[in-house]
Formats: sequence, structure tokens, C-alpha cells
Amino acid sequence: MNATSTPASTLRIVAAVPADIPTIRSLIRELAAFERLLDQAQATEEQLHEGLFGSRPSCEVVIAKLGDEPVGFALFFHNFSTFVGKPGLYLEDLYVRQQYRGQGYGEALLRHLAGLAVERGCGRFEWSVLDWNQRAIDFYKSLGAQPMSEWTIFRVTGDALTNLGTKATDANS
Amino acid sequence: MNATSTPASTLRIVAAVPADIPTIRSLIRELAAFERLLDQAQATEEQLHEGLFGSRPSCEVVIAKLGDEPVGFALFFHNFSTFVGKPGLYLEDLYVRQQYRGQGYGEALLRHLAGLAVERGCGRFEWSVLDWNQRAIDFYKSLGAQPMSEWTIFRVTGDALTNLGTKATDANS
Repeated sequence: MNATSTPASTLRIVAAVPADIPTIRSLIRELAAFERLLDQAQATEEQLHEGLFGSRPSCEVVIAKLGDEPVGFALFFHNFSTFVGKPGLYLEDLYVRQQYRGQGYGEALLRHLAGLAVERGCGRFEWSVLDWNQRAIDFYKSLGAQPMSEWTIFRVTGDALTNLGTKATDANS
Repeated sequence: MNATSTPASTLRIVAAVPADIPTIRSLIRELAAFERLLDQAQATEEQLHEGLFGSRPSCEVVIAKLGDEPVGFALFFHNFSTFVGKPGLYLEDLYVRQQYRGQGYGEALLRHLAGLAVERGCGRFEWSVLDWNQRAIDFYKSLGAQPMSEWTIFRVTGDALTNLGTKATDANS
């Protein structure tokens, strides 16, 4: 908050607090617009508050700032490796605003999260990338990340999820 | 616990309690042995207790039982969709013991978890499958799951994670 002690040129990466929710929602919508998926970005401030600070938080956010200006954010959560017996850190979204790209802020966010993963005793740090995004893939490999190419994620959503879940009652009654 | 009210032929799917930890560890090691990866199954009872019931739980387990006999288990955790603004349910491991296969218990576990996902207001239910496991892929598709084929998971682990995390200090100092 003090412009003298935190010059605009110094990047700070800080854990989000409830007052950051409007900023986080703006950044998510900026990311969605950039991906031409703005119509899919339906999260409300209430939903983000519930996910981050509600009774059963399911994710965390760190915000990268230059002075008080938000430069980007990362949203992540923990998973768990049954074999290693340790939690992992999974990065769901990483975004650097267009005007701040190419200055190492994305890498700084990745390194910050890797540091959190080590600090919290995690056995792995993971994220997903689109297959055609060769520039990102090359960058991630340069950081020591390995593609888990033999695995495919399957997803059930919408009506299919409701149907699958509803029939659960029969299977257990 | 009452053999009269819960005949051996009725499958029950119950949330794990701390007393189940030795059973869960056995099932994980059985799964690892089946996959010829027993050397990689290093999780101790203490680690599983920490992950499931510690100060910062990172996963949950349900156990499928016939009477008091464990038939299989599923380990899962929550993730979060930034666009939808809702948590998701991610299934990390599903295992049915060899002698109990082909009787619909795996499907019952999947349906149970889909039910939990709906109950908890999740927008999606996900898991990963090995690309060569066509039988599993066909089965998942028949349940309404869609392959997220255009995404690849990247993973940083071991020394690469330590290196990436350690340099975080420099980037933020």
C-alpha cells in the first residue's frame, strides 16, 4: 500500500483476501474474453467467495501485483497421490494481463506455486495445457515439467452428471 | 455391523473413518501390485491419515463393502472451475478387488460419487484413464463421460519441483 516501499517495478505475489473477489472475477472474465469464451464465464462474486472462503473452500488464489495494480492471477487447489501418500498442487488457471506479458510474470507465478508446493510437502505440481499450444509446452518442458501424454481426462457434466448421480440412489438402496 | 440387516449380498458404500486407514492402505497396495507398481506405493498409514483426516485434509475416501468385507474403494477430492464458478469432483483412484469384478461394483462406486457431486453442487465429475485402456474408455463413454482429448497434464516432481520452488525466493525477493 506504500508506494515508496513497494515501487511499481517490483512484482509481489500475494494470497487473495475476500476484498480481492471483484478483481479476481474481472481477471477471470478478461481471460475468458481473450479465449473468446466470455459466454462461458458465468462465475458470480458469490460463487467465487464460496469457493475461496466459504464453509468448504475448494480452491485458493494468488494475485501478482505491481504496486496496487493486478498483473495476473493463479487459481489452484490440492489433490492427492495415493502411491506417494502426499498431496499435490494443481494449477487450474494462470493468467497474465495482455499488457504485462513477456516480462517473466507468468514464470514468477509458476515458481511461486512450486515454492508453495514444496513448503506444503507436496509430491507433485501439475496443470493442463492445450495440445496445440506448442509455445507453452516448450516453456513448461524447459522448467522441468513432463507431459503425462498417456492419460486422458474424462468429464461428466450437465444432464449426464445429474443422470449418473440420480441413479446412485438405486444402486445403494 | 449387523449381519441380519446388512446381508453380504447388499453393497454398502460408506465414507471412510480413521479406523479404515489400514484397510485403505492394503487396498492401495493391492491396486499397485495389480498394476505391477508395488515399488511405487510408498504411502504410510500416517501419510494417509494426514491426507484424509489431518489439519488440512486434501482428499476423501469411500469404501464399498459387502457385509464387513471391503470390496473396493475410491479416493477423490474437489477441484474448482473458474468459468462455471463451482467446485468439481475429481476421482483419483477407483479400485475393485479382483475377486469382486464384473458385478457392477465399479459402476456403483462411480454412480455414488456422481451422486455426491450433484449433492454438493459440483459442476463436473472428472477422472483420468490410460489411453490404451479401451475397455474402460468405452465404459466411461457409455456413462456419458466425454474425453478431454485436447488437454495434456504436465507434472513437475522430485528434484525438478524442488529446483522450480527454490528459485521462487529469488523471483519474489
